[in-house]
Amino acid sequence: MRKIAMLTSGGDAPGMNACIRAIVLTSLRYGLEVYGYKHGYNGLLEQEYLNLRASNVTNIIQRGGTILRSARCLTFMSDDAARLAAKNLDALGIEALLVIGGDGSFRGAHHLSQHWQGQVIGLPGTIDNDIYGTDATIGYYTAIETALDSIDKVRDTADAFERIFLIEVMGRNAGFIGLNAAIASGADQVMVPELTRSCEDELKNIIDHIDAVKRRRGNNSYIVVITENLWPQGVTQLAQTLTEETEIECRPVILGHVQRGGSPVSQDRVLATKMGAYAVEAALEGKSGVMVAEVNQQLSCCPLETSWQTQKALDPYLVKIQQDLFDLLKRP
Amino acid sequence: MRKIAMLTSGGDAPGMNACIRAIVLTSLRYGLEVYGYKHGYNGLLEQEYLNLRASNVTNIIQRGGTILRSARCLTFMSDDAARLAAKNLDALGIEALLVIGGDGSFRGAHHLSQHWQGQVIGLPGTIDNDIYGTDATIGYYTAIETALDSIDKVRDTADAFERIFLIEVMGRNAGFIGLNAAIASGADQVMVPELTRSCEDELKNIIDHIDAVKRRRGNNSYIVVITENLWPQGVTQLAQTLTEETEIECRPVILGHVQRGGSPVSQDRVLATKMGAYAVEAALEGKSGVMVAEVNQQLSCCPLETSWQTQKALDPYLVKIQQDLFDLLKRP
Amino acid sequence: MRKIAMLTSGGDAPGMNACIRAIVLTSLRYGLEVYGYKHGYNGLLEQEYLNLRASNVTNIIQRGGTILRSARCLTFMSDDAARLAAKNLDALGIEALLVIGGDGSFRGAHHLSQHWQGQVIGLPGTIDNDIYGTDATIGYYTAIETALDSIDKVRDTADAFERIFLIEVMGRNAGFIGLNAAIASGADQVMVPELTRSCEDELKNIIDHIDAVKRRRGNNSYIVVITENLWPQGVTQLAQTLTEETEIECRPVILGHVQRGGSPVSQDRVLATKMGAYAVEAALEGKSGVMVAEVNQQLSCCPLETSWQTQKALDPYLVKIQQDLFDLLKRP
Amino acid sequence: MRKIAMLTSGGDAPGMNACIRAIVLTSLRYGLEVYGYKHGYNGLLEQEYLNLRASNVTNIIQRGGTILRSARCLTFMSDDAARLAAKNLDALGIEALLVIGGDGSFRGAHHLSQHWQGQVIGLPGTIDNDIYGTDATIGYYTAIETALDSIDKVRDTADAFERIFLIEVMGRNAGFIGLNAAIASGADQVMVPELTRSCEDELKNIIDHIDAVKRRRGNNSYIVVITENLWPQGVTQLAQTLTEETEIECRPVILGHVQRGGSPVSQDRVLATKMGAYAVEAALEGKSGVMVAEVNQQLSCCPLETSWQTQKALDPYLVKIQQDLFDLLKRP
Repeated sequence: MRKIAMLTSGGDAPGMNACIRAIVLTSLRYGLEVYGYKHGYNGLLEQEYLNLRASNVTNIIQRGGTILRSARCLTFMSDDAARLAAKNLDALGIEALLVIGGDGSFRGAHHLSQHWQGQVIGLPGTIDNDIYGTDATIGYYTAIETALDSIDKVRDTADAFERIFLIEVMGRNAGFIGLNAAIASGADQVMVPELTRSCEDELKNIIDHIDAVKRRRGNNSYIVVITENLWPQGVTQLAQTLTEETEIECRPVILGHVQRGGSPVSQDRVLATKMGAYAVEAALEGKSGVMVAEVNQQLSCCPLETSWQTQKALDPYLVKIQQDLFDLLKRP
Repeated sequence: MRKIAMLTSGGDAPGMNACIRAIVLTSLRYGLEVYGYKHGYNGLLEQEYLNLRASNVTNIIQRGGTILRSARCLTFMSDDAARLAAKNLDALGIEALLVIGGDGSFRGAHHLSQHWQGQVIGLPGTIDNDIYGTDATIGYYTAIETALDSIDKVRDTADAFERIFLIEVMGRNAGFIGLNAAIASGADQVMVPELTRSCEDELKNIIDHIDAVKRRRGNNSYIVVITENLWPQGVTQLAQTLTEETEIECRPVILGHVQRGGSPVSQDRVLATKMGAYAVEAALEGKSGVMVAEVNQQLSCCPLETSWQTQKALDPYLVKIQQDLFDLLKRP
Repeated sequence: MRKIAMLTSGGDAPGMNACIRAIVLTSLRYGLEVYGYKHGYNGLLEQEYLNLRASNVTNIIQRGGTILRSARCLTFMSDDAARLAAKNLDALGIEALLVIGGDGSFRGAHHLSQHWQGQVIGLPGTIDNDIYGTDATIGYYTAIETALDSIDKVRDTADAFERIFLIEVMGRNAGFIGLNAAIASGADQVMVPELTRSCEDELKNIIDHIDAVKRRRGNNSYIVVITENLWPQGVTQLAQTLTEETEIECRPVILGHVQRGGSPVSQDRVLATKMGAYAVEAALEGKSGVMVAEVNQQLSCCPLETSWQTQKALDPYLVKIQQDLFDLLKRP
Repeated sequence: MRKIAMLTSGGDAPGMNACIRAIVLTSLRYGLEVYGYKHGYNGLLEQEYLNLRASNVTNIIQRGGTILRSARCLTFMSDDAARLAAKNLDALGIEALLVIGGDGSFRGAHHLSQHWQGQVIGLPGTIDNDIYGTDATIGYYTAIETALDSIDKVRDTADAFERIFLIEVMGRNAGFIGLNAAIASGADQVMVPELTRSCEDELKNIIDHIDAVKRRRGNNSYIVVITENLWPQGVTQLAQTLTEETEIECRPVILGHVQRGGSPVSQDRVLATKMGAYAVEAALEGKSGVMVAEVNQQLSCCPLETSWQTQKALDPYLVKIQQDLFDLLKRP
């Protein structure tokens, strides 16, 4: 192998730059030329790329975002697009393409592999951690930390000034960030998709709990962590409903894309570095159609399709702990 | 003087604990007994207080919130309430009451002083910095820093993934946090009450600017910092309007009470410590009906009423800088 | 079981409070009375303890240090001390003692178990991560993060102003913090006990590397992460030696106990919470003489002795990555 | 005026990039071409410079270090060097040179102005705040914050595990960082050059104080903040002396260049932005031989020589507060 390329695709995640750096340095270590396509799959279609050298990745390990930019590319799922991408890759002489992104990006990679002879390898980069087959994804630990930092700050004020706070965190349709941030912050309540069957029941449940906690503690402070997209009318509306139903002022916090940025925490940098190095080695071994994964601290490759065909489960012991605390708080 | 008391009132602010600590230690230094009423003026009405010793304020200088809790107390503005408070203060033998809070708290203090013979001294504690007569208020620097930290993170993702971001910061009806956070983060646009005459004009202005910046930079990243309460229908609605008008996806971030918490930055701790010490000394000198202020790095006292009778202005040079950058960005 | 007790011993670690909180809340959840001995084993000897309630652990999950204080207790290894401790535990009716600490603390727990009929359970709490049998220890992730945060700051200045920086991190006799902080920060060189055979050879190695890197990069910036206790004369002396040998100014940074404090990161809080809850459940199941461990994301118990009888190894893939980067950097 | 240039010189400071950005954007706003010399005065001698555009300063406002690099340049004080620099500046057509740095850099600027007809303007950029004529210098607030963050972490462990901690902070020969960090962290003791007459007396003073505090508090925790260069044999040696004299273990922390890096806090970014913009305007007004200063929140210019001819004093009220707390702590 002589030439390898990479792109970052989908929502960006802290640690993508650390991963790019590891891919570049490892490629150079093995004597490969290494290219980076810009703006995700768009760069592949528009032949927008950079030849990357060590100097391009100096001092980027600590930066959020991605120096290659990211983008969604809806048109890429057409056969024409994949054929064009294949043609462009061949024209440049690329033998393996590494795709850092989430499940949408992996579907794109899989689609490309139907029309291209080169090797395609995915690296799980998303804050949501909703990729089956790997224990963690690049960016996930930083997103929990960012959410936690905000909840810690809210608790200062919840404590001083009794209120209900409703904190919306990211996660798309998965509760990994929400559950971990709730446990780590000692929140009173967590609403994540995996544990919420009916919003009406959940609302009643929370109102009863607030009432019980209020009597138990003798004050009105109460913090709820809720995953985005869960409440049909949005958290601003839910805050109003809670204010009316409990007669305690309820304020929303919407962290939004704050969680996608920031300097990656050490766990994300180390994971990104390991996965980046491993992906290059996997490419050299001829692997294709696979995602790099870390399971029980061992790096490995699994089929790309696995990542989206199975739903990843929350840690059952964490769910139990949250339920136990919930029960304890409502005791008389 | 033998006995002094304090309370924290209104929205809490980082540095209130540092201020409480300074009041306690300085009081003890001068041989005074020192008391803390809990839950703002409510504690004064319900005689809920603590005799404070050095051990009560050990290891609190770095903590957000207030160990005395804070609260709003709408009933306090009645004459009956003020008379009851005066009676309770006299019963405990308090000779001076220090009130840490914002302008609402100072109105309460002023009201009390109409019905009580003791000395009343205010200390400006609010993240909004909307207190005339002092250069800064306790908590203000931390709130800017918290907002800035989030905008920095959003910029990582704005940079990687081109979008408009709308970040709502606190400030009540003042733009101090908004303008400083915008300048410090290099935001593209800032909307603060002092500089916004008509929301319709402002909207048109921003849309034109986004269009110009997009052409100039060749990408769609754009960050707007906006003060709470400014946009009539809220920032979630404004984000939708911007998405529709510009055809660029616009996402809101609502930091909310996150800005009221957190460990105070050094400037807030130092300011709180100086003001706390100075307030005790002012009480010993017999001052009353005044607010402790820092103007041009000199501590002093000004009449309590001043704090709410005059509107504090934004730094005109900062306004000019923001306008200059705005103009520069829209040049062809 | 009706009564359970705990203590924190040895060097403190961020997350100990989160662990104490989880033990208290889980104990209450199961209807147990729960006690905390103060100052490690000293509290056991001097009968200094607290009956802990939910209110004692409110708002402590985010705090560094330990509300029970920690201490070393050299006298505890005598039989008399262990017998006195056993007598005191029995007098209070304690049926199980949970010990949060490192291997020294576990030796103490094991020693106590020779003289006491009650159950003894260890929870690994140390920043050094040098406890065999568990993937991570409470406090370890926060310590890496603190070290990383400082190295990131040093890199800013190394980059601007060309120099060699020598950053001493903790780890006692283990390189977990050092290797992870070096990989995560993109340091040029790491010196940890596991990988350092001879200090003389290592010094020569580094000087050659600095020279090669200098030529390759065209500048003099170079960052070395080094574990405490490794360099016989200390890092201040090593910095002088490097300055003389390379003729590039070398400055030392000694982070010291900064790494033992700070608000725990989410991973440490979640680990501490899981281990605390699990330890109480293990006690209820009658376990004794064991340490709670997390291996491959599964909680379990292993014999206390295991923790110190086997040396825990560094992640071999991380070692390989560091070596590969080292080699790459010195290429012409 | 058509062409303006800048350089960063001396020890780097957080906020230098924000200042560079402001100079570039303001210059472009006024239609000037703007150049940046690299590596301080060395770039001036070696004609190493960049023509700076808006894109060069995108996304740098939050970064530590300086994109122009900094360096000391001992040879610059010769007349030959200044003449060569003048010749190079004239060759490029530079009409005004802005120098961001400390007093050494200003001496260089003053020296250059003896040999060059162009305008020379200084901007105070140093973490030490030891520049007379301006209330604060760029980088100073961030350095306090970095020191404070470490002391906060040390306090967690001091509190849990009773010890003396000796924390060395920067400041060169000035106590601004030390005194502010000590007040803001609630340290027990501060040693800064302005308040230390004799090291022997000071040592005795501290040992007595530790003894008094120990008796008063009933524990051994004690934190000393000390400025670099103050203790003749260094803080590692002082820690040993304190351990021996007090029989309490004393541990040193040397923060070193960690304090020169990091993302600048909002106050430094705002100050840097204001000073950068103001310096360009001062250049356009024909000012020369001056330093941009902020006094009482007003920007102005003062003669360059002032900056090093007068020693800047510590805030006397802060000194009094520290002394009062010191006295209070040693009372029986």
